[in-house]
Amino acid sequence: MQQKTEESRISIAEFNAITASALPLAHALGLRVEKMTAGHVTARLPYDKQHLRPGGTIAGPSMMGLADYAMYAVVLSMVGRARAEAVTVNLNINFLSRPEPRDILAEGRIVKLGKRLAFGEVTLYSEGKPDPVAHVTASYSIPQEK
Amino acid sequence: MQQKTEESRISIAEFNAITASALPLAHALGLRVEKMTAGHVTARLPYDKQHLRPGGTIAGPSMMGLADYAMYAVVLSMVGRARAEAVTVNLNINFLSRPEPRDILAEGRIVKLGKRLAFGEVTLYSEGKPDPVAHVTASYSIPQEK
Amino acid sequence: MQQKTEESRISIAEFNAITASALPLAHALGLRVEKMTAGHVTARLPYDKQHLRPGGTIAGPSMMGLADYAMYAVVLSMVGRARAEAVTVNLNINFLSRPEPRDILAEGRIVKLGKRLAFGEVTLYSEGKPDPVAHVTASYSIPQEK
Amino acid sequence: MQQKTEESRISIAEFNAITASALPLAHALGLRVEKMTAGHVTARLPYDKQHLRPGGTIAGPSMMGLADYAMYAVVLSMVGRARAEAVTVNLNINFLSRPEPRDILAEGRIVKLGKRLAFGEVTLYSEGKPDPVAHVTASYSIPQEK
Repeated sequence: MQQKTEESRISIAEFNAITASALPLAHALGLRVEKMTAGHVTARLPYDKQHLRPGGTIAGPSMMGLADYAMYAVVLSMVGRARAEAVTVNLNINFLSRPEPRDILAEGRIVKLGKRLAFGEVTLYSEGKPDPVAHVTASYSIPQEK
Repeated sequence: MQQKTEESRISIAEFNAITASALPLAHALGLRVEKMTAGHVTARLPYDKQHLRPGGTIAGPSMMGLADYAMYAVVLSMVGRARAEAVTVNLNINFLSRPEPRDILAEGRIVKLGKRLAFGEVTLYSEGKPDPVAHVTASYSIPQEK
Repeated sequence: MQQKTEESRISIAEFNAITASALPLAHALGLRVEKMTAGHVTARLPYDKQHLRPGGTIAGPSMMGLADYAMYAVVLSMVGRARAEAVTVNLNINFLSRPEPRDILAEGRIVKLGKRLAFGEVTLYSEGKPDPVAHVTASYSIPQEK
Repeated sequence: MQQKTEESRISIAEFNAITASALPLAHALGLRVEKMTAGHVTARLPYDKQHLRPGGTIAGPSMMGLADYAMYAVVLSMVGRARAEAVTVNLNINFLSRPEPRDILAEGRIVKLGKRLAFGEVTLYSEGKPDPVAHVTASYSIPQEK
C-alpha cells in the first residue's frame, strides 16, 4: 500500500464547511479535520465531559462518530465534494483500551477505492499516547454520476 | 434461542436514570428505553434535525449511538446495574437503507451471555416501517465482581 | 421480518450440484444444503476429524466455510443460479463457544435483498444443542444482468 | 505502532509442526508460515484448483482460512506455544477484489496484546500484485496460565 501524498480532491476548509453546514451532530461534537491528503486524514474529537461514560472514560459512540467522520473525509478526499452523498455501508470497530478524558485523534486511510465501494481503516488514539484505543474498518457506497 | 420474558435485573426507570446521570451524550440525543425484559430491549432515538446528513437522511453515528445504547441496556438487563462499567469490545454495523427523517427504534436481544463477554444483536427500524434500516452485532466485556 | 415460505429460485438438488461441480473445497468438506425456501437455508458440516484444532474442538475456518456456504445458498435462493457469480463482500463472525466434535448446522436467512447487495445472518449450532456456537453476518455483491 | 523485530516466542519450524500435527485442515490446504517475528507474520496459501469458485477466482473460505491461520501465528509469536489453545473470538473480513488463480500471501500483525484478548489485522495479497485482495481484523482469546 503506497503512501501517496497526492492532493486531496477537497480542501480541509471545504470539508470543515460541510461539517458546519450539513453534519450538525458532528459539528456539535466539535469534530474537525486537521490534516488531509488524497486518502489520508487526521481528525480530532476535542475532549468535553459530555463524552464521558460510567468509569470516567470516553464513550464508545463518541469514538464511533469520530471514526465514521474521519472515514467520510477519507472518501471525499478521493472522490470530491460532488459525491458528498456517499454513505457508510459497513463499519466494524474494536475497542482496545478505555480512553482517559482527553482529545481523541483519528488517523484514517483508504485501502481500496473501487467504482462503487470505498474501503478504509481508521485508528484512534488518545492524544499524546502511543497505543491505539480503537481500530475501525469501514466501507462507503459511492454515488454514481448521473 | 428461547424468547424468555424473565424480569430484567434493572428497571426501565433505573436505566433511564443512568442515562440522565452518567451518559450525557445519549441523554442529549434523547435516547431512552421503552421496553425491557431480561435480554430484550426496545430503545428509541427521537427524530431531531441534528441527526440529518447530506441527502436528508439520518446520520450513521446517530444510529450507531442508538444501537450501542440498546445493547448496553440488553447487557444490564442480564447482569444488573452493579456492572454498569461493562464496555463495548466489538461492534459491527451494516446499513441497509437510508432512513427518512423520523424516529428510529432499536430492537436488541442477547444471543450469548458468558462470564466475561456478552454478545447480542440489534435491529434498527424507521418507526412505522417494516424493513430494517440497519443491523448491528456487538460484544460487551463484563466487569468481574471484586 | 416476515418468515416467508416462498419457493426458492434454486432447488436443493441444483444447489448441491453447484457444490459438487464448482465449489471443490466445500464439496471436499462435505458441505450440503438440507432445507431451502426463499431466503431461508439450513446447511450442514458433517463432523470429520480434519476439522479439529488444539483443544479438540471444531476449527474456526471450518465454521466460517459453512457459514459462507449457507449464506451463498440464501443469496441464490433469492436471485437464482444465473447469478452464481455473486461474491462475499463482508463477513463478520463471532465465536460464542467451542463446539464439540460433532456435526455443525447453519441456519441462514436473508435480512435485506437490495439490487446490488444482499445482507443476511447465519447462526451456527452443534447438532442437538440449543445454544449457538457462532453468529455470522455477511453481505454479498449481486452481479448485474448484462 | 512500533515495528518491533523482536524474536518470536515460537519458531517457524515449531509453528509449522503444530500445523502438521494439530491443524489438519490448514495442513491439507498447504498453509505455512514463511516469516515470523514477534507480532509480524507472513503466511502463504499455495494455489490449487480446489480453491476455485464460480467465476474462476479464489474462494472466500480459502482466504478466511489463510487469514485466521496467519492471525493465529501472530498470536503465538507473542504468547508462545504453551497457549496454543488460544481461539478466535471475532473475525471481520472485507473482500476487495477477486483474486486470480495464484498463491495468496497474508501479512499479519498484532495491534494490541492484552492479558485476555489479542487484536490484530491481516492483509491478503495475490502473489506479485501490489493491491490487497482482502483485509481482515481478528480478536483472539488468550488462555490464562493455570
